[in-house]
Amino acid sequence: MSSNSFGKLFTVTTFGESHGPAIGCVIDGCPPGLAIAPEEFRRDLTRRATGTSKYTSQRHETDDVEILSGVFEGQTTGTPIALLIRNTDARSKDYDEIRDVFRPGHADYTYWHKYGIRDHRGGGRASARETTMRVAAGVIARKWLAQKFSITVRGWLAQLGPLTPKAFDWNAVDANPFFWPDAGSVPELEKYIDALRKAGDSIGARVNVVADNVPPGWGEPIYGKLDGELAAALMSINAVKGVEIGAGFEAVVQRGSEHRDEMRLDGFTSNHAGGILGGISTGQAITASIALKPASSILIPGRSVNVRGEETDVRTKGRHDPCVGIRATPIAEAMMALVLMDHALRHRAQCGDVGDVEPKIPGYAKR
Amino acid sequence: MSSNSFGKLFTVTTFGESHGPAIGCVIDGCPPGLAIAPEEFRRDLTRRATGTSKYTSQRHETDDVEILSGVFEGQTTGTPIALLIRNTDARSKDYDEIRDVFRPGHADYTYWHKYGIRDHRGGGRASARETTMRVAAGVIARKWLAQKFSITVRGWLAQLGPLTPKAFDWNAVDANPFFWPDAGSVPELEKYIDALRKAGDSIGARVNVVADNVPPGWGEPIYGKLDGELAAALMSINAVKGVEIGAGFEAVVQRGSEHRDEMRLDGFTSNHAGGILGGISTGQAITASIALKPASSILIPGRSVNVRGEETDVRTKGRHDPCVGIRATPIAEAMMALVLMDHALRHRAQCGDVGDVEPKIPGYAKR
Amino acid sequence: MSSNSFGKLFTVTTFGESHGPAIGCVIDGCPPGLAIAPEEFRRDLTRRATGTSKYTSQRHETDDVEILSGVFEGQTTGTPIALLIRNTDARSKDYDEIRDVFRPGHADYTYWHKYGIRDHRGGGRASARETTMRVAAGVIARKWLAQKFSITVRGWLAQLGPLTPKAFDWNAVDANPFFWPDAGSVPELEKYIDALRKAGDSIGARVNVVADNVPPGWGEPIYGKLDGELAAALMSINAVKGVEIGAGFEAVVQRGSEHRDEMRLDGFTSNHAGGILGGISTGQAITASIALKPASSILIPGRSVNVRGEETDVRTKGRHDPCVGIRATPIAEAMMALVLMDHALRHRAQCGDVGDVEPKIPGYAKR
Amino acid sequence: MSSNSFGKLFTVTTFGESHGPAIGCVIDGCPPGLAIAPEEFRRDLTRRATGTSKYTSQRHETDDVEILSGVFEGQTTGTPIALLIRNTDARSKDYDEIRDVFRPGHADYTYWHKYGIRDHRGGGRASARETTMRVAAGVIARKWLAQKFSITVRGWLAQLGPLTPKAFDWNAVDANPFFWPDAGSVPELEKYIDALRKAGDSIGARVNVVADNVPPGWGEPIYGKLDGELAAALMSINAVKGVEIGAGFEAVVQRGSEHRDEMRLDGFTSNHAGGILGGISTGQAITASIALKPASSILIPGRSVNVRGEETDVRTKGRHDPCVGIRATPIAEAMMALVLMDHALRHRAQCGDVGDVEPKIPGYAKR
Repeated sequence: MSSNSFGKLFTVTTFGESHGPAIGCVIDGCPPGLAIAPEEFRRDLTRRATGTSKYTSQRHETDDVEILSGVFEGQTTGTPIALLIRNTDARSKDYDEIRDVFRPGHADYTYWHKYGIRDHRGGGRASARETTMRVAAGVIARKWLAQKFSITVRGWLAQLGPLTPKAFDWNAVDANPFFWPDAGSVPELEKYIDALRKAGDSIGARVNVVADNVPPGWGEPIYGKLDGELAAALMSINAVKGVEIGAGFEAVVQRGSEHRDEMRLDGFTSNHAGGILGGISTGQAITASIALKPASSILIPGRSVNVRGEETDVRTKGRHDPCVGIRATPIAEAMMALVLMDHALRHRAQCGDVGDVEPKIPGYAKR
Repeated sequence: MSSNSFGKLFTVTTFGESHGPAIGCVIDGCPPGLAIAPEEFRRDLTRRATGTSKYTSQRHETDDVEILSGVFEGQTTGTPIALLIRNTDARSKDYDEIRDVFRPGHADYTYWHKYGIRDHRGGGRASARETTMRVAAGVIARKWLAQKFSITVRGWLAQLGPLTPKAFDWNAVDANPFFWPDAGSVPELEKYIDALRKAGDSIGARVNVVADNVPPGWGEPIYGKLDGELAAALMSINAVKGVEIGAGFEAVVQRGSEHRDEMRLDGFTSNHAGGILGGISTGQAITASIALKPASSILIPGRSVNVRGEETDVRTKGRHDPCVGIRATPIAEAMMALVLMDHALRHRAQCGDVGDVEPKIPGYAKR
Repeated sequence: MSSNSFGKLFTVTTFGESHGPAIGCVIDGCPPGLAIAPEEFRRDLTRRATGTSKYTSQRHETDDVEILSGVFEGQTTGTPIALLIRNTDARSKDYDEIRDVFRPGHADYTYWHKYGIRDHRGGGRASARETTMRVAAGVIARKWLAQKFSITVRGWLAQLGPLTPKAFDWNAVDANPFFWPDAGSVPELEKYIDALRKAGDSIGARVNVVADNVPPGWGEPIYGKLDGELAAALMSINAVKGVEIGAGFEAVVQRGSEHRDEMRLDGFTSNHAGGILGGISTGQAITASIALKPASSILIPGRSVNVRGEETDVRTKGRHDPCVGIRATPIAEAMMALVLMDHALRHRAQCGDVGDVEPKIPGYAKR
Repeated sequence: MSSNSFGKLFTVTTFGESHGPAIGCVIDGCPPGLAIAPEEFRRDLTRRATGTSKYTSQRHETDDVEILSGVFEGQTTGTPIALLIRNTDARSKDYDEIRDVFRPGHADYTYWHKYGIRDHRGGGRASARETTMRVAAGVIARKWLAQKFSITVRGWLAQLGPLTPKAFDWNAVDANPFFWPDAGSVPELEKYIDALRKAGDSIGARVNVVADNVPPGWGEPIYGKLDGELAAALMSINAVKGVEIGAGFEAVVQRGSEHRDEMRLDGFTSNHAGGILGGISTGQAITASIALKPASSILIPGRSVNVRGEETDVRTKGRHDPCVGIRATPIAEAMMALVLMDHALRHRAQCGDVGDVEPKIPGYAKR
């Protein structure tokens, strides 16, 4: 499979560079008969977009999605759905200075060594702009999962540098540009980011994602495990350096008697597994957490070398995020939705005859 | 691709249940002309094996590898290499009691819901016994990587519950059954595990893996990223709940000015990236860390339900590990080697014409 | 995907050389709950086997199938099914003379150039012995297709050199070792083959295969077309040089008004399409025809060269078939069954929600 | 892998419907550093295009290719190459009458049964318009193959209904709109087609393709055979009902002593194998031949049924080809080039270490 494709049956192939004429994707394997309109991409693309608050990069892209194929009279036909977004606010001039320089912490040096050629403008293919198409594809997956299984996939910013929320409220998540679940500490967050920007620096973040109402039985042993594929999906997001499922690294210090989620007929007693055992869903909430590194494009000059083998300093201009984690929430949601969508189809392919299996244990409720 | 297969070009397909007649694998895509003999599997299989110390399960399997195909007069021919190991010490009787019971923290309940049928003996396909074949396949990958690129892949136990090593010495890693890098604290470890076993409980662990001498340029954007595929590979190991590359979750509290690895002609100044930027290797050491949950099979009874929808308690008999993390080191090494092997082939497929690219920055030395 | 694997969701991976210790396969993606016993492989393996009549190679293999995994208490569990057959009647000595010689018409020269090494004994991996495992895997596919859809897949020898059957009777097909549908002309066939053997020569053949009761809607545009994948499956059988679907090459001289299969409510008026339009099944019989080249291993000496770059003559000893086409019938049936099985699963993965679509046109009846 | 994708390492994904806003493709895995400009697609797209002579459909599309990604300053970068062509001359009105009718010989009925919904305009996804993108992708493959291996892939119309060429001249092939290798009989061809069009009917055709200078060693046993994948590639072209490699169906009546291509140091003595033995290239010319059915869209009314289950007659309006085989030549060339490109990359992935293998036998020269 193409390395720019994702998913075995619900397959998303993305293309495009940050400053090329357009970005786009082809979604193959979508069930037919799903209603979808261009405007349905608006909400999630706006959530991911830069330039919507002063806390993200000031690049303004309208991100208007054109549906090129696979939809007829408002419904998916089962043939490939191609989506296209033109790049309109690319300022390639900003990048002339770094044409021959490898920015520290960026993919400049590695693309150069892999391909012997690179599109330096805005990071080219390595730019987070690519994630726009993940979010767009995720919109379709989320709609189908919601219609057919009432599955929701939601994320939030769980940590920003040293700051953690003191409270959790889904309404708060949607009410601020950070996806921060604690309305009370949003001012503190803003203050922190403002100071960071003034210092010309950036900070890491943690984002959590949870899928509710996933039926038990999705996922495939051994190399098609739901958690294995979630890990790949989430780690493939720009800047992600760590992935946890359920208890994650907390499991290192847990005892077996504490970690294992016991079962009663009225429900599991806990959810340290994050809704996955042996790579297959338990029917509990699927929970994941990711670590995002601080943006490498900062005003503070960094030591580097150039393509001619000379040492140099690089100070990134252009429009950048003080914390790339802020916009990662809808991307992480999209990736989880895409993995679930793919496994929904894979499950019914192999196990469509199995039917309803008893007993069913309700999921552990506490978030 | 089959979900019991791993790797795009160096493809490993495993089969077998814990208490079935045999386990095995088929390795396809191996370069021809590599010398390989059955006895070469011995070392790593023994490192992974149970029953070699009192700190692991007392199941004793000889793990004699039979090469069924793909090797002619001691050399690989380029056709599929099939490896077979007979199961000889399976005590299925031990599992009669749990035939109809879902052990908490195990895949019993999820396999049941997926397939409507399950081989309950020793966990069936979900048993860690499957990892034997990963280690076997890894032996071939490691040999080729070492011969052609001098690549080494090595791991160690970096944490066991609350205990962490106070020193680091590769010689120590090989000299104790825990892969513990600090000889001085091995007695403390032994004492801790003895107490745990007496309590009938288990504990989590952290294992680190590092690959040295990986050339810059391996890995593929966007969904074939080296770190994305490492995450999938490592998360697919039984009991793993978290994966970190480089700084991992530490990156959440790092600033950009700290995290980004600066470059001088005499070397990178740090390796927070874990040797991967934009999904492609930098030439620095590839570093990963994984969290392993505590074994769920413990003597302390756990609350559960059975297939008839009745509540029951389950107390695992059989032979089990107080800390599954102890044996995870060679498995994690194998998975990293398999990912690297696959990407070595993928890289030369697409970029075989690129040739030697300058400049090359030496890796950051400190472990 | 491994090039020794076949099928996207019902994935068969085969391994083994003609004179190695064993051949085998791993079948992944099989629906759970299918009853299968070792003795069920007997019938088709015997139909494919050599040594069952004097008209095929005199190699006698018992072809006892051992089920190594994936079946528990007589039923498939959904995990990989590994099948193993030991090679017991390999006479490698017969091949010593051709160790360094490239037999004309064989894969000797091409394997040598690809891999720089080859297992010369009995053709190694290129031997038709590999097809044993296709037939074995096909047994499982055929059983599931029959149980769930009443699908049958049947083949016959449609031409042997200049000879064609004058009548068609399914009972005849099963009653002679040639799968010849015309009982009356079997003696003529025997006489022809006897003369051929006496002359130390071989002959080509044509085999037809038909699948009945395939529902409309299976197959996927554009590169997953049912006919495209059938073509790959059938062309991958040893010695096949041509594949036709429906009218095949006869279509070259047909007019559109003749070729297109018209539709009435009581049925299609013809089946020139071979049951496939736009890569998707019509509900008519799926029909295919293949050309098999004459065996290259004959007593008549052939001019060749050896690995040292010297010209030489080669006269094949060993035990060979005067017409490899004779045994191809069960192999072609197996390959068609495997393609259909895979598409059955793929179809319900994507289109499981579509439900029953009207109107349904009955298939054209005449064979 | 997506069923709208083709190729394991050089992967082409196409999208688009005949009357949708655009068609396009994404080419992933292309080696970096290949110079490519939009105008290079012109020649082959024009050869494939309709409306260039009165002997093909009168739909006029400019087929201007826009390169959306993967090319930077005129060279491929190794990232996905997206190509886009807007549909400009779609006359959907022409198809209103067949909105609810299943045209005989078309994919209307099968798409309806698969998806429960279909884009009826111009055949939607099943239209031959999709092959435009195959040709476009083929341009890139052909350029790389020519530059690196001097490989050429060329085809010609070998039969049109009852007519066959009496002479063979490559110059003739390029000098008439039929790709007919015999200049002398072009008038006969024109007369035949004119009469056919007057009769409102269509005719089948045979197209041959040959690749020269393919090195020995490309292709992979067992299910990745070069001939197996060629068969899939060619059979996936619209209207193809049969595929032959080398001698093809002629092999049915050949004797082994005749068919097997003997070897002398100065060359093979014949090429009945079509340049492939055991699925791997011999170094001889790769030869394939395909049968194309007559177009089903003809003026002569055909009996059919509609979506409401009523019998009806259908007479195709719109703009159609009297012989779809005429335009198939560049498509068949493109598909062969794509298969070879993919195998070139696959071969060096696995066997990049093998080096130069001796002896090399020159190919058989006669076409």
